[in-house]
Amino acid sequence: MKKYIGIDLGGMSAKAGIVTDTGEILAKATKPTKRDGTYQEILKSMADAALEALKLSNLRIEDIESVGIGSPGTPDNEKGVLVYTNNLNFRNVPMREEMQKHINLPVYIDNDANCAALAESVAGAAKDVKTSITFTLGTGVGSGIIINNKIYSGFNYAASEFGHTVIVVDGLLCTCGRKGCFEQYASASSVIRETKIAAEKNPESKINELTGGNPEKIDAKVAFDAAKLGDKTGQEIVDNYIKYLAAGLANAINAIEPEMIVLGGGVSHEGEYLLKPLREAIYKEVYTREPVIFTKIETAKMGNDAGIIGAAMLGL
Amino acid sequence: MKKYIGIDLGGMSAKAGIVTDTGEILAKATKPTKRDGTYQEILKSMADAALEALKLSNLRIEDIESVGIGSPGTPDNEKGVLVYTNNLNFRNVPMREEMQKHINLPVYIDNDANCAALAESVAGAAKDVKTSITFTLGTGVGSGIIINNKIYSGFNYAASEFGHTVIVVDGLLCTCGRKGCFEQYASASSVIRETKIAAEKNPESKINELTGGNPEKIDAKVAFDAAKLGDKTGQEIVDNYIKYLAAGLANAINAIEPEMIVLGGGVSHEGEYLLKPLREAIYKEVYTREPVIFTKIETAKMGNDAGIIGAAMLGL
Repeated sequence: MKKYIGIDLGGMSAKAGIVTDTGEILAKATKPTKRDGTYQEILKSMADAALEALKLSNLRIEDIESVGIGSPGTPDNEKGVLVYTNNLNFRNVPMREEMQKHINLPVYIDNDANCAALAESVAGAAKDVKTSITFTLGTGVGSGIIINNKIYSGFNYAASEFGHTVIVVDGLLCTCGRKGCFEQYASASSVIRETKIAAEKNPESKINELTGGNPEKIDAKVAFDAAKLGDKTGQEIVDNYIKYLAAGLANAINAIEPEMIVLGGGVSHEGEYLLKPLREAIYKEVYTREPVIFTKIETAKMGNDAGIIGAAMLGL
Repeated sequence: MKKYIGIDLGGMSAKAGIVTDTGEILAKATKPTKRDGTYQEILKSMADAALEALKLSNLRIEDIESVGIGSPGTPDNEKGVLVYTNNLNFRNVPMREEMQKHINLPVYIDNDANCAALAESVAGAAKDVKTSITFTLGTGVGSGIIINNKIYSGFNYAASEFGHTVIVVDGLLCTCGRKGCFEQYASASSVIRETKIAAEKNPESKINELTGGNPEKIDAKVAFDAAKLGDKTGQEIVDNYIKYLAAGLANAINAIEPEMIVLGGGVSHEGEYLLKPLREAIYKEVYTREPVIFTKIETAKMGNDAGIIGAAMLGL
């Protein structure tokens, strides 16, 4: 059984794990990263997290095949360089070279959403299909495309930004500068935004009961909880969310036609309560017609550690 | 120099050509197809067109490597079967088997828009890049994805329907049943539709001068012609068209990040007059940021015979 280090770089911390070739995590550790830190400082924190996980696993560096890094932005794996990232303000950072000063192993890097998609493809929901897209419905909408069991990165490592495809021209302003991006309608944040608006407009809604009337307690789950209790306002939020989510996912299917769409992130924990009406809405909209086989829609299986596991699997 | 038969199946006719491995057409012929014909009748017309082109080229069947068919709908090249098509009402038609009753050569089939994209990739605008998407802006919006110099068909031959990705949720009704598809805003038909509306609303527009006041004479070109003459109405139509076209193309770039987008069809004949403002609009919207290299936007080079040439090249 071969073992790999996987590192998931976030905005606030670096999470690292020792991962087997079947996707099992043997040990993990987290180190905070300074938001305004130099790349040398951030790479040092990443290496520290990895070495701590290694220590916890009772393995030695000689037992490890490689280090994989899942990073926000646009990493160029060929050159080992993080070309561009928005939230860390990095340009052309020599990640591989810098990491190898701390851990002298082969170093692979890729986009964090791509790593989550790879984890689902190798060991998770999409392990029986060759072509899949994994969407993470969180603060934003991340997505990673797997074609023939490999990450598809585009010609220059910037592909698979489905969160930033416009589904409403002149719609809501997105953090990326475009208006009407899928992310503004399909993220967990968008559910929270719409729930806050609706709860204020409809004081009688069970949403207010469930949150004790405190808008700060509104999360992406409460509208679903209220809907399950028969609350009209909750149901409207859920229906509207599914409508926009279906539109963007049907777009991805019409463009790429993967064998499976995998949905991760908090909202996906609603499971079949979300998936059943979502599939119905999507299958009405896709270009595929019988007797062509439809794309499957499933929830993610790798949980919060998908980023670590997928990063480790870059070395497979 | 190897030679191939390429057949482009349309709704009204089958066009066939004898094509060299560098994309040169040695001879071509067209046969009408009956819209309500059986598949046997339509395949016979296709074979007749191919055999007539062969005769005109003074070659014999022994000189030809293979027959390639570009078809509307969802052809399964592995099985040689046209699984589904909307405009011919075909289901599971054994195209390869039927064609081989007439011409006993290897037969390859693929989607017509994919064939046009392959032609641009092998011998046209995209011949120096590995990954491209070719859009045909005509009655509808067709598109074909080329990844690593090969057609990307999706897991079940229904991918690359960018014309049917929604850019305006609840927007204009599309022929596919969805509302707000890219095709409804970026096709030549949409330019004609908008020009007719604007010409009626603005009797003073040069559009009416250029068409002698006859709405029937409005084509996809006249708004561009009027804009070039300084006509405000024409300019508004062009600006609006570019805005929506840019939105859909930026979506395709954010999803797939090809090295090049190729634009074909009547509207693309506007050349740099269209491309210059279009590039500006797209580059403002794409997720790619310096120093990442941007996707190139160019016009198609293979003209109306791209379908025949691309079909022939299925045999390469």
